[in-house]
Amino acid sequence: MAVVTYKKLIEVFEQILSDTGFSETESELCAKIFANSTADGYHSHGVNRFGEFLKTITDGHVQLGIKPERELALGSFERWNGKLGAGPLNADFCTKRAIELAKESGMGCVALQNGSHWMRGGSYGWQAAEAGCIALCFTNTSPNMPSWGAKEANTGNNPLIVAVPREGGHIVLDMALSQFSYGKMWNLSMNGKELPFEGGYNAEGELTTDPKAILDSKRLLPTGYWKGSGLSILVDLLVTLLSSGKSTAKIGEMEAEYGLSQVFICFDAKQMNSDGRHKELVDEIIHHVTNAAPEKEGGTIEYPGSQTRKRRAKHMKEGIPINDEVWDKLLARV
Amino acid sequence: MAVVTYKKLIEVFEQILSDTGFSETESELCAKIFANSTADGYHSHGVNRFGEFLKTITDGHVQLGIKPERELALGSFERWNGKLGAGPLNADFCTKRAIELAKESGMGCVALQNGSHWMRGGSYGWQAAEAGCIALCFTNTSPNMPSWGAKEANTGNNPLIVAVPREGGHIVLDMALSQFSYGKMWNLSMNGKELPFEGGYNAEGELTTDPKAILDSKRLLPTGYWKGSGLSILVDLLVTLLSSGKSTAKIGEMEAEYGLSQVFICFDAKQMNSDGRHKELVDEIIHHVTNAAPEKEGGTIEYPGSQTRKRRAKHMKEGIPINDEVWDKLLARV
Repeated sequence: MAVVTYKKLIEVFEQILSDTGFSETESELCAKIFANSTADGYHSHGVNRFGEFLKTITDGHVQLGIKPERELALGSFERWNGKLGAGPLNADFCTKRAIELAKESGMGCVALQNGSHWMRGGSYGWQAAEAGCIALCFTNTSPNMPSWGAKEANTGNNPLIVAVPREGGHIVLDMALSQFSYGKMWNLSMNGKELPFEGGYNAEGELTTDPKAILDSKRLLPTGYWKGSGLSILVDLLVTLLSSGKSTAKIGEMEAEYGLSQVFICFDAKQMNSDGRHKELVDEIIHHVTNAAPEKEGGTIEYPGSQTRKRRAKHMKEGIPINDEVWDKLLARV
Repeated sequence: MAVVTYKKLIEVFEQILSDTGFSETESELCAKIFANSTADGYHSHGVNRFGEFLKTITDGHVQLGIKPERELALGSFERWNGKLGAGPLNADFCTKRAIELAKESGMGCVALQNGSHWMRGGSYGWQAAEAGCIALCFTNTSPNMPSWGAKEANTGNNPLIVAVPREGGHIVLDMALSQFSYGKMWNLSMNGKELPFEGGYNAEGELTTDPKAILDSKRLLPTGYWKGSGLSILVDLLVTLLSSGKSTAKIGEMEAEYGLSQVFICFDAKQMNSDGRHKELVDEIIHHVTNAAPEKEGGTIEYPGSQTRKRRAKHMKEGIPINDEVWDKLLARV
C-alpha cells in the first residue's frame, strides 16, 4: 500500500488531466474532486475510478471543453444541458448555480440533462454545505438493480444526497439505493468475505450474503427491499422529468453509462436562519442522536458525515493509503 | 367485517367532526382526507385512526379553528406556522400553497412548523399530483426508532413522499423509514404471524421476524439498516431547519406526538413539460420497470401507487371493508 500526500495526489491528477486535454481550470477542479473523494476514504469513486473516468473520454462518451447551456429558467428553477461533458465538472457547475439561486432568493433548483457520471455524489453535498446551503441532490444511473418483484435489472441504484451545513463539521448523507454497492461486493468477494447482511439473490433466486453469487446473478437487493425499490423508481422519474433528460431505461440502451439526469436543490441556510436558531436546532438533533444508549456497551453512535470527517483528518495528517498497483499505474502516466 | 360505501363513510366522518367543533368546510375536507385514505386501503391512517385523532383534540394537543400564519417568505419558499391546528388540515393547506407557488413560478416550497400529525402522508402526494405537480413531502415524528448503533429510539421513522402526475393514474411513493410500521407489526402480532423479513431486535438484541418481540423491545430496524437510519436523521434536520420547528428530539420531550415539522416541495409539471415530453418519459420509465422479467413466473411488477389505485377502484365499486368494532364505535358517535 502506497501512502500519498493530498498535495501529491492533486499534482498527479492535474498532470494527467491536463495531458488528456482538460484546460488548466478544469484540471484543477477535477483533480480536487477526485482527490477529496480519495482523502475522504471513497477510493472506489476517487483514485480507484480515475482510470475508468479517463477511458470514458478516450472512448468518446465524455466530451472535453464543454460549457453547459441553459435550456429553461423559471424563477428559482433552471434546467441545463450538460452536453455530455465531464460528470464532476457538470455537477460542480450545477451545484454552484443552485447555490447562487439559493443565495438570490432562499432556494434554488438546477436540473441537468446529459450530465454524465458525477463520480461520488457526496462531493456536491459537501460543496453545498461548505457554501452554507442545505442541499438535496439526486442522480439516476444505468439499470443496475431489479425493482421489487423483478428478476432483471430494470431500475438504477439512483443515489441521493442530503447535506446540512454545521460549524465544525457538516452533516452529509450520500447513499445509493442498493443495499450494497458493486464496489463493496467486489472488495469482499476478492477477499473471500461475506456481506454482513443479505445483499441480493444467488442463481437459485435465494437471498444470500455471498457477494460473488450476487455479482454473478446481477440481482442486487434494493435498500430496504420494496422501499428502496420504490424510491429508486421515483428518483428516476424526478430527475428525468425535471431535466427532460435520459431515464434509466434510455441509459440502458446505450453502450455505456453516460448522459445521466441529475437534480440539485439548495436552500440558503443563512436566510432560512432568520430567527437565529440554526445552530441550536442542529446541535439539538445531533446531540439527541449521539447521546442515546449505544447498541453495544462502550459503542459510539455515528451520523452521516461524522466518519468521513475523521477519515479526512487522518489522511490529511498521515497521508492517504492507495493500492500500489493503482498508484503505480497513475505514476506511469505522468 | 362491515362493508361501507365511500359516501356513507364521508357522511359519518363529517357528522362527528362537525359535532367535535370543526367548521363545515373543515369537516368536509378532513372527512374527505380520512375517507380517501381508507378507500385506498390505508385503514391504519384512515378509519382505524379516526378515534385517536379526535382524542388529540379532546386532550388539547390539537387546536380547532386554526388559520396557519406565514412566518417567512423568500421567493418561492415560504415558512408557515400551523399553530398546532389539525394535522391533515395544515398539511392540505401547505400542499395547496406549494402548488400555488409552483404554478406561479415553476417551483414552490412550504415549510410548516407546529403542524401536528398529518395522518397518511401519501394524501398530500396524491393531492399535488392531482393538481398537476411533481412533489416531495417530508415530516418528522416523535422518536420511535433507534438510529444505527443505538439501543433506544433516538430518531423518527420520518416519512417521505414523492409523487408524479400521470394521466390515467398518478405515481405516488409514501414510505416511512422503519422497515415495518407499528401498524403492520400490531396486525401480524395479533394474528400470531411473523414478519416476512427481520424488522427489529428482540430483548436479547438479536434481529428477529417476531413482531411482538420488536413491539416489546421498541427497537425497530430502519429501512435498509444504516441507510434508512442516516436518511431519517437528515429528514429531521431538513424539516426542522426549513420550518424552524420542533425536532424529533423536542417532540420526544412532550407528552404526545404533536407540533411536527413538515416540508412540501412542488414543481409544476406543465411548466417542466416545456418540450412536451412528460408523458413519453413517464411511460418510458414505467414501461421499462413493469415489462422486466418477473421474479416469479407469471408474476407482475408493481410500482408506487399502482396497487393503491387498484384498491381504490375496488372499494369505490364494492364498498370499503371496515372492522366491525371500529365501525360500530363510529356509528355510536353519530
